[in-house]
Amino acid sequence: MGEFDLIARYFTRPTAKAVLGVGDDCALLQPAAGMQLAISSDMLVEGQHFFANVDPGALGHKALAVNLSDLAACGAKPLAFTLALALPRADEAWLAPFSRGLLALADAHGCELVGGDTTQGPLNICITVFGEVPQGQALLRSGAQEGDDLYVSGTLGDARLALETMRGTVVLPAALLEQAKSRLEQPTPRVALGQALRGVASAAIDVSDGLLGDLQHILRASGAGATIDASIAINLIAACAHTSWATGIISFEQQLEYVLAGGDDYELAFTAPVSARNAVLAASQQAQTPVTRIGSIEKEPGLRLVDTQGQALTRHFSSFDHFA
Amino acid sequence: MGEFDLIARYFTRPTAKAVLGVGDDCALLQPAAGMQLAISSDMLVEGQHFFANVDPGALGHKALAVNLSDLAACGAKPLAFTLALALPRADEAWLAPFSRGLLALADAHGCELVGGDTTQGPLNICITVFGEVPQGQALLRSGAQEGDDLYVSGTLGDARLALETMRGTVVLPAALLEQAKSRLEQPTPRVALGQALRGVASAAIDVSDGLLGDLQHILRASGAGATIDASIAINLIAACAHTSWATGIISFEQQLEYVLAGGDDYELAFTAPVSARNAVLAASQQAQTPVTRIGSIEKEPGLRLVDTQGQALTRHFSSFDHFA
Repeated sequence: MGEFDLIARYFTRPTAKAVLGVGDDCALLQPAAGMQLAISSDMLVEGQHFFANVDPGALGHKALAVNLSDLAACGAKPLAFTLALALPRADEAWLAPFSRGLLALADAHGCELVGGDTTQGPLNICITVFGEVPQGQALLRSGAQEGDDLYVSGTLGDARLALETMRGTVVLPAALLEQAKSRLEQPTPRVALGQALRGVASAAIDVSDGLLGDLQHILRASGAGATIDASIAINLIAACAHTSWATGIISFEQQLEYVLAGGDDYELAFTAPVSARNAVLAASQQAQTPVTRIGSIEKEPGLRLVDTQGQALTRHFSSFDHFA
Repeated sequence: MGEFDLIARYFTRPTAKAVLGVGDDCALLQPAAGMQLAISSDMLVEGQHFFANVDPGALGHKALAVNLSDLAACGAKPLAFTLALALPRADEAWLAPFSRGLLALADAHGCELVGGDTTQGPLNICITVFGEVPQGQALLRSGAQEGDDLYVSGTLGDARLALETMRGTVVLPAALLEQAKSRLEQPTPRVALGQALRGVASAAIDVSDGLLGDLQHILRASGAGATIDASIAINLIAACAHTSWATGIISFEQQLEYVLAGGDDYELAFTAPVSARNAVLAASQQAQTPVTRIGSIEKEPGLRLVDTQGQALTRHFSSFDHFA
């Protein structure tokens, strides 16, 4: 199978929203009047973002999901994406499930594959995604204000639990591992919540490298600090990690680490004024995505963790850095 | 140097055209009213698109040039691009010249770096570029009509000559190799010509995989055929390849092969009605880019090569395919 056959068979589909899709030198998009185009690009590499033995269908899902998560963090509605793919060889047994997983998530979000590139090389998946957001309404990292509440969607920690199990530092029963792995390998981008938070949240980011590390980006961009109540944040713990703690597989400390610095969760962390608490609740209900208020934004720079008595927790949680 | 330091040091610059650049979950672009956004994505992999010992500055140039060439083929004006980069390690001795080469070409075309991703992994450069084109005016592969003239910009063959020398199948004097290498490693995207051809050309493509192979894409998309006069096409030969033939380093057959199936030239091949000959000439002069008329579009499918007497040349020239 040659390069052009491969593109034709697995990655060429009719487009409805795009003016022009796969098969020319460029794709053509025309955002509606008054809309801005939100753009994000993520590259997934074997050994860094996934294991060599990952299910190709799950990988197809994840490659797009991490990009949709960036659109969600900006409050943008998915429109289209390009896929650039380096493959060791044109292997149909890999390509068929990969494209199925990818396109199933794309269809679920009305996000069209409009172009890209394929080449031979070490496995590498680079997706660039396009969404639209009404002019001036994009959620940015820089909008957090002193006094704002700090929220996180969904639950955290199961992706890290699966990762640690696959690394061999934790031993999980098979059924529990399968469940945790689905959080690691097939994350759910919070696309509906991001859009519902337009005009409500003051700042937002997606939690990909660990909650505390990602929150630092909001704080730095906003020139602010925050205090998080760890006794509330611990309630963000995802189901498998909670079960693992309750059955003595992981310690309380590990559980806290997974919540605060787990990584690969793809939930949204966001801030909103106290006056918007009802609006946040309404957005959460509209998007059918739970959110938890875990702290507040303060003038004093830095991120502080406190216990129920307001005492500072001094433990260090490190975030993920590809080159650290 | 961590991932975020690396991005800050080498790839974060203020933006003028984009609403929002590097540093948030998404970049934001707003095409002007009546404009469509042309999008292209290319992935460059060591061993496939460049040698391990390539000058990093030249590689930075080429990574963007091949994408700008796609915009040129659509007649789009460059606006912005994203860069996703997998690097074996955060090596400043590589990153500094790479970013200089990349951003120098970006500046020359007013094309802003608005976002991207960096990760550890086998060297891989994926750029997605955005350009704007007035609604309905993009040059497509599908517009060639029976009777149209067939043109190629600039010259062809030096990139292939350099490649063959580096592969060891041809032996060139050092000075000639240096000159030919600049065509291979620092191609000139025909951005001005592409824009000048809007409303003039009926179809266009950039010549990246070899002239005959790329022309086939126009013919298939347009449901047409073409005849090329090889005795005219041979005049497209680039300076170093011509010198190499004139001094007996390569044969006439090799010269013809380099012109017709060389690859990596990044010239434009395009079609235009006979009635537009003066307009093509004006576009060529406006863009200060020579063009040569080498044949014409016909109803009968297929691509035919003839000599000065109109006799068919039956030799086979194969195009480049990453998986063939």
